Amino acid sequence: MKAIVITRPPPSSSSTCFLHSTNSTLSFKFLSNSSNLDNKRNLAKSLHSATMESGSVLKAEEARVPAALPLPTSPVTKFKIALCQLSVTTYKERNIAHAQQSIEDAADKGAQLILLPEIWNGPYSNDSFPVYAEDIDAGGDASPSTRMLSEVSRSRKVTIIGGSIPERSDDKLYNSCCVFGTDGKLLAKHRKIHLFDIDIPGKMTFKESRTLTAGARPTIVDTEVGRIGIGICYDIRFQELAAIYAARGAHLLCYPGAFNMTTGPLHWELLQRARAADCQLYVATCSPARDSGSSYVAWGHSTLVGPFGEVLVTTEHEETTLIAEIDYSVIEQRR
Amino acid sequence: MKAIVITRPPPSSSSTCFLHSTNSTLSFKFLSNSSNLDNKRNLAKSLHSATMESGSVLKAEEARVPAALPLPTSPVTKFKIALCQLSVTTYKERNIAHAQQSIEDAADKGAQLILLPEIWNGPYSNDSFPVYAEDIDAGGDASPSTRMLSEVSRSRKVTIIGGSIPERSDDKLYNSCCVFGTDGKLLAKHRKIHLFDIDIPGKMTFKESRTLTAGARPTIVDTEVGRIGIGICYDIRFQELAAIYAARGAHLLCYPGAFNMTTGPLHWELLQRARAADCQLYVATCSPARDSGSSYVAWGHSTLVGPFGEVLVTTEHEETTLIAEIDYSVIEQRR
Repeated sequence: MKAIVITRPPPSSSSTCFLHSTNSTLSFKFLSNSSNLDNKRNLAKSLHSATMESGSVLKAEEARVPAALPLPTSPVTKFKIALCQLSVTTYKERNIAHAQQSIEDAADKGAQLILLPEIWNGPYSNDSFPVYAEDIDAGGDASPSTRMLSEVSRSRKVTIIGGSIPERSDDKLYNSCCVFGTDGKLLAKHRKIHLFDIDIPGKMTFKESRTLTAGARPTIVDTEVGRIGIGICYDIRFQELAAIYAARGAHLLCYPGAFNMTTGPLHWELLQRARAADCQLYVATCSPARDSGSSYVAWGHSTLVGPFGEVLVTTEHEETTLIAEIDYSVIEQRR
Repeated sequence: MKAIVITRPPPSSSSTCFLHSTNSTLSFKFLSNSSNLDNKRNLAKSLHSATMESGSVLKAEEARVPAALPLPTSPVTKFKIALCQLSVTTYKERNIAHAQQSIEDAADKGAQLILLPEIWNGPYSNDSFPVYAEDIDAGGDASPSTRMLSEVSRSRKVTIIGGSIPERSDDKLYNSCCVFGTDGKLLAKHRKIHLFDIDIPGKMTFKESRTLTAGARPTIVDTEVGRIGIGICYDIRFQELAAIYAARGAHLLCYPGAFNMTTGPLHWELLQRARAADCQLYVATCSPARDSGSSYVAWGHSTLVGPFGEVLVTTEHEETTLIAEIDYSVIEQRR
């Protein structure tokens, strides 16, 4: 649309003014000292008259000029990502050891970024969430799952998007994803924002909100392998979250997710491709492997999608680790 | 996200304040007389404290309460739509007579809403746009294409989303879609906002902006068959436009469009399904039939998509008219 929104930062913060228009974003420097007030007025005036005359500050022949804003620089442009579609059992210790083994195998194969599934330390069920929940902020013995992630990210010098585990914090439970850097430090923790409540009679009924509390904030994090926006499962349903990440320069969106046998065939691939194509960036998803005997049967189909919305690699529902190359220079080409 | 945006209408207009939150939209009544100022302050205060305490004004167990805002009432809930995937020649008179025949055939089969393709009165090329352009605002002999649409919509009592034709206005050319009501009156005119400039070396080069000027405004229109948001072709690439229409209560988005042999297989279906699934409404698209001998080869594949992002009917690339039923009550179910 040709609607123009000028957003000025508060005077004390940065000094850049963004002007959003049709196909591109123009950025004007507003110097913050008052001697530049005239410049501001002149700019506002010329913008106003340009808008009035043509209905737009952009002429049609300049619809692609200037180009899109450049992406932030990533420490690496090309690297390998691993999607660990793990089988999950009722034995937490086994699940932790098994995830560690998968991460180490992926690191051995050259993966620099490793993505785990949603809820990998125990079954995905309201009965299990309180039992398998850990106090991530307390750490140590209070959170053996994230302790393992921290140790293996440091020992193998890999970045880990740690899927999610149930988190206990005060008297609340969250569905939380921890991101660890190559030094083993916790870089970010994302609490699932959009809880998944579904009730399709005769097909699928599940209410996360019976036990979990929703997260309050988007999470975007700078890592050794680029700027990454995090969502968990149903968060992918909401394009606004992806749009926020894209506007803040994400190279890649990672969604650990356990879609089910109803929503999986209906929306899993569509939503990943839509988020990637709309935002023109990479999208990686990672599901648990399917366990037909569990109360909640995961769809599987962990996938990497490129910035044109194209599926680059995907799999079926069995346990497997997908390793694929990401090349951020493709994003610039697509844009 | 839990970010809260309170939008207040100007005092002279409506008296409703919208508060957008995670999974639903809460609506509070703000009475416009000043004696209610205290109420406003109290509400603002309680919202503030709720936000501070819980990180959200919504409790997890209320994440789906209250329900989504109700849709505006449509004069009809169930009706038939026709997508006329027309063959287009270099003979304008033939194209107009041919389109009229297709519309009448569709009306005979019970269609109440008829959608035509992008640029149906002449070839899709920069050389042709000026030759086939019409002065729509002048009407009559100056616009035989829209005169026909007006006449046939009145005589058959159908609503027509008239695909698009090149429009001449002053010294400018636009790619414009006219909507006619069952009384033959022009209800709306949408000028394509996002011009299509593509340059993929060796594959596809086309620059609409060489001849056309971009439209400046979104177009949403109340018709006998519901509230309809209009986009033309590349407009579908931009989810923001669809989101605006959804926020204003659209039941259906109509995109006349001529994707090509490069962008068609890549994005045509994905974008339609993404717009429908993200906004939870119907999306209808209509392409010209494919003419392999023309300079710009259309992809075809006119399609109707339901509010779950599911393809309801689609076709190949030959000339055909698809007729399908739309049922707006499905939108409420999905939401």
